Amino acid sequence: MASDATTQEQESRQLVVPSNAALVDLLGALAYGELSAFDRLAEDARGAPTLAGRAALSTMAAAEMGHFRLLEEHLNGLGATTAAAMCAFAPVFDSYHAATAPHDWLESLVKAYLGDGLAADFYREVAGWLPEPTSSLVRRVLADTGHSAFAEREVRAAIAGNRQVRDRLALWGRRLLGEAVAQAQQVVAERDELAEFFVRGFSDLAGIAVLFKRLQTNHGQRMAALGLS
Amino acid sequence: MASDATTQEQESRQLVVPSNAALVDLLGALAYGELSAFDRLAEDARGAPTLAGRAALSTMAAAEMGHFRLLEEHLNGLGATTAAAMCAFAPVFDSYHAATAPHDWLESLVKAYLGDGLAADFYREVAGWLPEPTSSLVRRVLADTGHSAFAEREVRAAIAGNRQVRDRLALWGRRLLGEAVAQAQQVVAERDELAEFFVRGFSDLAGIAVLFKRLQTNHGQRMAALGLS
Repeated sequence: MASDATTQEQESRQLVVPSNAALVDLLGALAYGELSAFDRLAEDARGAPTLAGRAALSTMAAAEMGHFRLLEEHLNGLGATTAAAMCAFAPVFDSYHAATAPHDWLESLVKAYLGDGLAADFYREVAGWLPEPTSSLVRRVLADTGHSAFAEREVRAAIAGNRQVRDRLALWGRRLLGEAVAQAQQVVAERDELAEFFVRGFSDLAGIAVLFKRLQTNHGQRMAALGLS
Repeated sequence: MASDATTQEQESRQLVVPSNAALVDLLGALAYGELSAFDRLAEDARGAPTLAGRAALSTMAAAEMGHFRLLEEHLNGLGATTAAAMCAFAPVFDSYHAATAPHDWLESLVKAYLGDGLAADFYREVAGWLPEPTSSLVRRVLADTGHSAFAEREVRAAIAGNRQVRDRLALWGRRLLGEAVAQAQQVVAERDELAEFFVRGFSDLAGIAVLFKRLQTNHGQRMAALGLS
């Protein structure tokens, strides 16, 4: 999806070295993101219409905890505890999830699919200018847990020939982008060193505006992949 | 805890070969047990009083899904789908969990600790007379996911100097044994080939009575390990 961007990044690879505080923040935010993705998927799994669907979503939830442990090891290597690193980010992620609580199984799937995609796009940009080994860690943590193909299949099957469901989910998908961007801005606004790191990194992109444009384009492509455009 | 029993079993190793239907049932019940343990731990994690506790419980939940996948591979190797194999056992496990829904974080921990221990005791007996490779699979799936030490630490700290909490949790622990045994009997009553397999296996043990005595003794030891006897 963001393969063009990734190739570009690897060719230029202008590194922006984060301060230790910014790096701990970045990994702490990612770790809390994984933990809350785990929690959300585990809860969504409970609402699955079939045992096979429930097992599939539970397996994906478990994969998020695999990523979480990679981040934990890295944070411990930096002398930070994961709980302390995550702490500042819990309220923002929690209020995003509270504001976008799915009403049914399909909304759960759409949210997980689009949300994971957005997060992956954002962190992949950042990984482009992070030094190693953090850059590889971030890319590895963002690897698809198999959720995408499953969600595409389920959502496409559900909306086939049901215009009403399709319209409702399309609206839901557009709303999620707005909420996610609003919450992301709030994260950065509250963390000075992290904000400074992002500003230095994104200055190559003619500022945040270019980033948002990219996120929006990729979001639209994902909506299309679900059959929602 | 059950290491004496395990050694004994390995010395004698009188095999009881299950029918294909009984084997699929056995693995299906184990698989649903793992899936519902995942679900229960994920929900308990949400009630953790600290972020570190939440991450610890979420990690343990994820480990259950690792075991689930081993069972799934084995079931698929037998030509069975996991969902179909689990299907018959969902109501009994679900009603056990509904009848023993924890009221707080400590009850969650005690339930997970004692419930995992009971299940492990039971399946370890069965693994003693199952042929390979199923015997090793069952033992591997029952490996402690790190939950025990965590629960012992948390519960012991909480009841230190608080007799009221200790008495409440001790009562809770005794109730769980009764509920678990009642539900296990129901599982067997409903599955003819599985019941026949158990009867053949447990006949060496002078019948089910000896098994119950062992489970009770080990349960008492686990209560003591939590400081609840």
